[in-house]
Formats: sequence, structure tokens, C-alpha cells
Amino acid sequence: MAKRAYPLSKVYGLLEPGPVLLLTTARKGQANVMAMSWHTMMEFEPPLVGCVVSGRDFSFAALKATRQCVLNIPTAELAAQVVGCGNTSGRRVDKFERFGLTPLPAKAVSAPLVAECYANLECRVADTRLVNRYNFFVLEVLEAWVDPTCKAPRTLHHRGRGVFTVAGETIRLRSKAK
Amino acid sequence: MAKRAYPLSKVYGLLEPGPVLLLTTARKGQANVMAMSWHTMMEFEPPLVGCVVSGRDFSFAALKATRQCVLNIPTAELAAQVVGCGNTSGRRVDKFERFGLTPLPAKAVSAPLVAECYANLECRVADTRLVNRYNFFVLEVLEAWVDPTCKAPRTLHHRGRGVFTVAGETIRLRSKAK
Repeated sequence: MAKRAYPLSKVYGLLEPGPVLLLTTARKGQANVMAMSWHTMMEFEPPLVGCVVSGRDFSFAALKATRQCVLNIPTAELAAQVVGCGNTSGRRVDKFERFGLTPLPAKAVSAPLVAECYANLECRVADTRLVNRYNFFVLEVLEAWVDPTCKAPRTLHHRGRGVFTVAGETIRLRSKAK
Repeated sequence: MAKRAYPLSKVYGLLEPGPVLLLTTARKGQANVMAMSWHTMMEFEPPLVGCVVSGRDFSFAALKATRQCVLNIPTAELAAQVVGCGNTSGRRVDKFERFGLTPLPAKAVSAPLVAECYANLECRVADTRLVNRYNFFVLEVLEAWVDPTCKAPRTLHHRGRGVFTVAGETIRLRSKAK
């Protein structure tokens, strides 16, 4: 599927619902991917995203050193791969190969996009003040890509221990707020 | 419905899926409630939650001054009230009265629980280092209450401008991770 550039002003609508993400990094020619649910929007534009990447995760050192990553948003078809990424470590496994995920070159960062995800957000680390205490990184989204054919993405929302709910019906109400 | 105390070690499973929340505060005898989607788990136990409360929101000053709040998790039946809370300000409106929400006394904080929500998390502000820059508060959950009859809560996930997806089907996969 060909993705299209997506307006940065609309990125919050992709992350605010709280989907599980696949976070990719690349360091010394080695790409890695991990599952992540602990993230929040922090600003509309430029879009800022706060996220926790555990110091136990192999991605932590790469994110800290390179200050770059991609947030990829999977849908329900990728549930097994998401859990697989959570159950293995990039220290021992090439997870792209193991789980049949396709790395694509990004535009602004060295970390790869995951082709199978319906949306990809290229990010730089913008603030590390809470990294030492909480492993909390503030990211700025630099480029966003979305599959334009995916209108109602069946995103995955982790309830813990491999249990997910899938985004279901849509409710539209009049709102003055963003 | 009678709520039961919920183990703090399991709180992450309530927030990690990314539901919209109703945040309640109380200051000088005046309770207020606002809708909030910008939150993330930051630690399992004691449960830490990071959240953005805009400086434009009436709740901001109350949260900053009292350092207490309750995070209430609504389900789809409350969608109109959630949007209503987002469209009005506590400066001018008693939102509990306006939207037929019932404030109940909390155990550990002065902010009220919203009776109609299926879960309520009493919180204290634990860290304000990113408040000035991002309006980002780190909260510690002190007490948690859940309606034990609500097994598959139809939580609301905001996509922006009053559009929500509702938590749909459940997928269960084997996971070694929390």
C-alpha cells in the first residue's frame, strides 16, 4: 500500500485514542522494533508525544543515543506480531525477520518505518529531562505517513498480559474542542 | 452500583488502553469535571500516570493548588456527557448539575468520584517538573474503585473533534510481558 504524507496538525487524532504502537530504532546499522502502550500526546503542533521506554528494553539505549525513532501504528491483523515483539528482545533476535515485518527507509530519521502498519510517525527526541527518573522521553513528530485507504483503523488497545480490545464502532458528537 | 476497591497493581490495565477520562477536582468547596485524553501510564506500582491539563482549563489551577484529583473512566453510555464537559467551562457552569453527574466523596482526596463512571482512581500530584513547560503532571494513584459487574467496559477513545471509537472485540494472546 502506498502511504501519503499526513498533516502534522492532525497527528494527535492518531495517537489520542491510545493504540498500541510499534516503536522502531536503528543504531550502528541494526534496526529494532518494540511494542509500546505508554504514550500520550503533549502538544498539537508541532506534535509532541511523551512515552515511556523501559531501561530494560534494548531500544532504550538506541533511543537515548540516536535521539530518533518511528512510532508505527498497527491494526488488529498484526496482533500476533505485536505480542511477539513484546515477548522477544532485539538483543537476541532480528524481530523484523522473525515476525515478517518490512522495514522501509524513513525521510527524516535513520530508524525504519514498518510497512505493514497503517500509519508511521518519524520522531526526534525533544526533551530528556524525565528520562533518568521515569524513562520518559518527549518526542517531536517530524513527518507523518498514513495509508489513505484505511478510514476506520481497527487499532489495538492493550489491557495487560496480551489482552487487547480492538477499536469498534464510531460515535460522532458535536464538539467545540479539538 | 456498588464499587469495589481495586488492586493498585492492576490499575495500569485500566488506563493503558487509552480511554477518555473525566478528571475531577475540588477547590474551596467547588467541584469541577473535565474531559481528558492526554494521559499515559508511567509506572506499574505504585501506579504513576502522566497527564496534560491545559493552562486554559479551569481545572488547571485547582489541580496545581490542591495537588489532588480523581481520574474517572466513563463508558459509551456517557459519551454525550463527556463531550458536554469538554464544551463547557467550570468557570461558568456546575457541570455535575448540568450533565446529571453524581459526585461521591472519595477516600483519600477532596475531589469527588463520578458515580456514573465504571472506575475511579484517586490521585495525588507526585511531580510538577514538566508543568511549566508542557502542563504535564505526574500523578500517583492512591485508591482505585471499579464496578465489579463491568467486565468488558465499552470505553471511549477520542479521535478528535467529538469523534470516538468504542472499545470493541477482545483479543487474547499469550504474552510474557505485563
